[in-house]
Amino acid sequence: MPNYSAPVRETMFVLNEVLSYDSFASLAGFSEAPPDVLETILAEGARLAEDVFLPTNRVGDLEGCVRAEDGSVTTPKAFREAYARYREGGWMGLAQPQEFGGQGLPYCVHAAVGEYLVAANMALMMYPGLTLGAISAILLHGTEEQKRTYLPRMIDGAWTGTMNLTEPHCGTDLGLLRTRALPRPDGSYAISGQKIFISAGEHDLSENIVHLLLARIEGAPAGTKGISLFLVPKFLPGPDGGLGKRNAVSCGSIEHKMGIHGNATCVMNYDGAIGWLLGEPNAGLKAMFTMMNEARLGVGVQGLAVSEIAYQNAAAYARERLQGRALTGPSEPDKPADPIIVHPDVRRNLMTVKALNEAGRAMLLWTALQADLAHRATSDDERLAADDLLGLLTPVVKGVLTDRGFDNAVMAQQVFGGHGYIEENGMSQFVRDARITMIYEGANGIQALDLVGRKLALNGGRALQAYFQEVGAFCEAGRNDENMAPYTKALKKGLNDLQAATMWLMQNAITKPDNAGAAATDYMHLFGLVTLGYMWGRMVRVAHDRLASGTGDTAFYEGKVVTGRFFMERIMPETSMRLARMSAGADTLMALPAEAF
Amino acid sequence: MPNYSAPVRETMFVLNEVLSYDSFASLAGFSEAPPDVLETILAEGARLAEDVFLPTNRVGDLEGCVRAEDGSVTTPKAFREAYARYREGGWMGLAQPQEFGGQGLPYCVHAAVGEYLVAANMALMMYPGLTLGAISAILLHGTEEQKRTYLPRMIDGAWTGTMNLTEPHCGTDLGLLRTRALPRPDGSYAISGQKIFISAGEHDLSENIVHLLLARIEGAPAGTKGISLFLVPKFLPGPDGGLGKRNAVSCGSIEHKMGIHGNATCVMNYDGAIGWLLGEPNAGLKAMFTMMNEARLGVGVQGLAVSEIAYQNAAAYARERLQGRALTGPSEPDKPADPIIVHPDVRRNLMTVKALNEAGRAMLLWTALQADLAHRATSDDERLAADDLLGLLTPVVKGVLTDRGFDNAVMAQQVFGGHGYIEENGMSQFVRDARITMIYEGANGIQALDLVGRKLALNGGRALQAYFQEVGAFCEAGRNDENMAPYTKALKKGLNDLQAATMWLMQNAITKPDNAGAAATDYMHLFGLVTLGYMWGRMVRVAHDRLASGTGDTAFYEGKVVTGRFFMERIMPETSMRLARMSAGADTLMALPAEAF
Repeated sequence: MPNYSAPVRETMFVLNEVLSYDSFASLAGFSEAPPDVLETILAEGARLAEDVFLPTNRVGDLEGCVRAEDGSVTTPKAFREAYARYREGGWMGLAQPQEFGGQGLPYCVHAAVGEYLVAANMALMMYPGLTLGAISAILLHGTEEQKRTYLPRMIDGAWTGTMNLTEPHCGTDLGLLRTRALPRPDGSYAISGQKIFISAGEHDLSENIVHLLLARIEGAPAGTKGISLFLVPKFLPGPDGGLGKRNAVSCGSIEHKMGIHGNATCVMNYDGAIGWLLGEPNAGLKAMFTMMNEARLGVGVQGLAVSEIAYQNAAAYARERLQGRALTGPSEPDKPADPIIVHPDVRRNLMTVKALNEAGRAMLLWTALQADLAHRATSDDERLAADDLLGLLTPVVKGVLTDRGFDNAVMAQQVFGGHGYIEENGMSQFVRDARITMIYEGANGIQALDLVGRKLALNGGRALQAYFQEVGAFCEAGRNDENMAPYTKALKKGLNDLQAATMWLMQNAITKPDNAGAAATDYMHLFGLVTLGYMWGRMVRVAHDRLASGTGDTAFYEGKVVTGRFFMERIMPETSMRLARMSAGADTLMALPAEAF
Repeated sequence: MPNYSAPVRETMFVLNEVLSYDSFASLAGFSEAPPDVLETILAEGARLAEDVFLPTNRVGDLEGCVRAEDGSVTTPKAFREAYARYREGGWMGLAQPQEFGGQGLPYCVHAAVGEYLVAANMALMMYPGLTLGAISAILLHGTEEQKRTYLPRMIDGAWTGTMNLTEPHCGTDLGLLRTRALPRPDGSYAISGQKIFISAGEHDLSENIVHLLLARIEGAPAGTKGISLFLVPKFLPGPDGGLGKRNAVSCGSIEHKMGIHGNATCVMNYDGAIGWLLGEPNAGLKAMFTMMNEARLGVGVQGLAVSEIAYQNAAAYARERLQGRALTGPSEPDKPADPIIVHPDVRRNLMTVKALNEAGRAMLLWTALQADLAHRATSDDERLAADDLLGLLTPVVKGVLTDRGFDNAVMAQQVFGGHGYIEENGMSQFVRDARITMIYEGANGIQALDLVGRKLALNGGRALQAYFQEVGAFCEAGRNDENMAPYTKALKKGLNDLQAATMWLMQNAITKPDNAGAAATDYMHLFGLVTLGYMWGRMVRVAHDRLASGTGDTAFYEGKVVTGRFFMERIMPETSMRLARMSAGADTLMALPAEAF
């Protein structure tokens, strides 16, 4: 079994000390979970992750999911008990409305606990994870009856949900989709078509599965303008609200994947299945995006979570594995060799992952907090500003935390040497599981295009200007602070690169859209570096304050000061490479004919 | 089945046009394979790879190896026929001495064909691949009798070989090894101990398996000074040279690995097995390194090969998969969508892999050519210069081509979107197979330390100075050439960074060895970037010459000009990041106590 200790202290540091969680105490949800309650919730989540989820992780990978001839799908044996414990604990409804049985706590608390549970078993957490997206869509677009029928059972975890977008010939380009919806006299629709890559499309963890599905109503316009969102339950709700007739939706096969073996990735066949419109006809794509954005933050959580568990195992191995001697002379002369953590190159791997995880957690929780403030802040201005920042950061959280998360898992695996390549040691599974996060819910190239092609220019660049202002002001404030100046100087250099990159886009991409496409991925990572650097700046500032005031926990805060310095010295220099690359433009990229590849 | 077309034209371009293969026509081996014969050999190798090896690749991954209770190991069914065809074609002996049944052709020809065969099935090619290392060690260190007994059968492929270094508690740090050798009255030894991670340690492809093994002779000094190299055959040679008695060596189990499932990775138990000293007592580590260096080049070939087949499949997919429209307007308006190769971000992935593969192949063959010249060149000076360069480039070829090869396979997988995560499509296998190349034959961190800690300073830095001289002179020559100046300017910038990095090491690492360890990986990649850039410079110069002289094949040479420009614009800027990172030194890296991780 892999090691895992949920980083509750780290989460508390970020939420409470860096992001001033308690300053929002007057807002809905926050008032019910002041810092001491928050800590208790995190500790409970940590126990569930460590004691219940973690032991199911590797057996889930080995056992995988099995589809029987009748189309039913069996998940790994250990998952049922673990999911039952998750339900019993009320974790599904943590941040859901009390009106429908949830606890109404802040989304940032949900995201924080989510990291622990996903780290302990990513494949298992996908079942409730996808349900959350479906809940959000029903909350936003459902009729009162739909809400009453579905939400209490979904928020209770008795029923789970899915997102059905992809078809064999269309993934990113949803305008091509062919699944059809025929109106029926009673106002429902008969849905026919095939969807693929449907995570948790069929399984044995819940009584019912609520499929949210994109389809085209008979006669609707071609392309994306003719797509509607439907709600298609596996079992139709009965008159008492319980389970009624089995619907004509079935799992045709499940995929053999590189990782997340414990999650069933299904081909779903709809053969005149009965469904109901969710929201307005032909407005399905927009409705889908409301659930997509939340799902993207959830995938960012996955990137961070897998990176963290991989890191913890690599660190433990590096402390224990004896091999070679420190370059400066034996550190443990009484042993046959020193632990490999004495070797600078091993530390380079560990420090890189550590520095990215700690800042990644801060970036994620900062973004999650914006999701809360966008709904719960008291003034219009605050809500608008939070919503702006949320929109800007969502593709960055998804794209950057998953690209980095995968790279980090690979680096952590490398610390194990040959032992990392052996499945029994678990590091391979982290790499295989992490790989999907770069792909699903919009491949990372699409995240980059969302950032560059949509989010930057939105409302005349209002969100971006506010972001530049905030980070710029932080740098300015640090200039004359002896402790902070080395950090803010490095951050300012990164911010300058990002602003130059933005300027380059304004001058070169509007008239020539290929330049935007060619720059997108490097721009997204440049944005991520500056944001992670800003998080380090804020964390280090708090750490210096605590060290100066002598509040104790010195080793913890000194760790922040050192790790933040590592980030500035070794990771921040990447910004100029990103700028140089994207400034090369699209010409060379587009020069070769397709057949020259 | 994955796509694969062996890049014979690319190999001929590098060997014949860029590296002036025909100028060595007077040397042994080269004289027997002038360019037209070379091309025929490559085409034959390509056929074996495409027609025979490729169909066994995915089935080998699925089927894996199976160990029976008696310790015998069965390889995937299709491997036997494919290996038989490899043997029959005489591929094993391509570059082996004619005296023992080989064909005596240059090593660079062997490496070129090796790329094709490894691309088509890496796991299968490991069986003969490890044999080659064993052959080299016997050639260099064996007695006449040992050579006569083993070499003809191994060069014929009837017997295969292995390298037995690792033990459960020691991988990199071989000084810790415990396997013991007791002298027997007849001059042989009784070997006892356990070795792990022994690739091809037991299998059913050959009649006999010749284990080369490191062990400590009873009473030998502790540490690396007491290690000897032994030859321990699975079957003792009989009086007629055929198979005699079964030796006391057996496979205790095989590993479940992330990839290369078709290759048996064995735990080997030696229970008083009879073995013979190979070379001098207590000089085993040095002898092992002669076979290790060749194996490292072989692993570099693997990095390139898997990257190439992954690239070819991604390129084919990008030309066929219809999704979205070009940002500049529909490129195929009569189809429902454009092929995804119109999207700049997809091209960014493809061009990156293409630019690295083409330069990687050139770097590899340039290095392989040095191995030939080190032995076959006519003057002492030439042999010495070639040997210097070979020593310098070997860790770079291993470390850089495998780190890049893995990243490239991941990038190629990303082009497939969700379909890349499904095992049936083969891209996952490339990623899983490529992963091991960064680890075995010395993890890449060890390659970096070999370069920085050993190779740079060897003979007063003679090899490095010659390298700087050669690349510097190339840049100087390009300055006033209108076609070449944009390339050599970018290369010179990279060379300056490398020289600054070298200077930094001289000033900071000698007094403080942790600075060398902390800089090693970045230095190695910086060295790799400059070398790959130099290869691009040389390839582009030839391409310009050909285009100017109008020899035809215009599209091919224009492709080189464009792809080389891409490398300089988008990949070369990484050098300054590498320099900045390593110049940060070791202090921050070493600051935290082990328990802070």
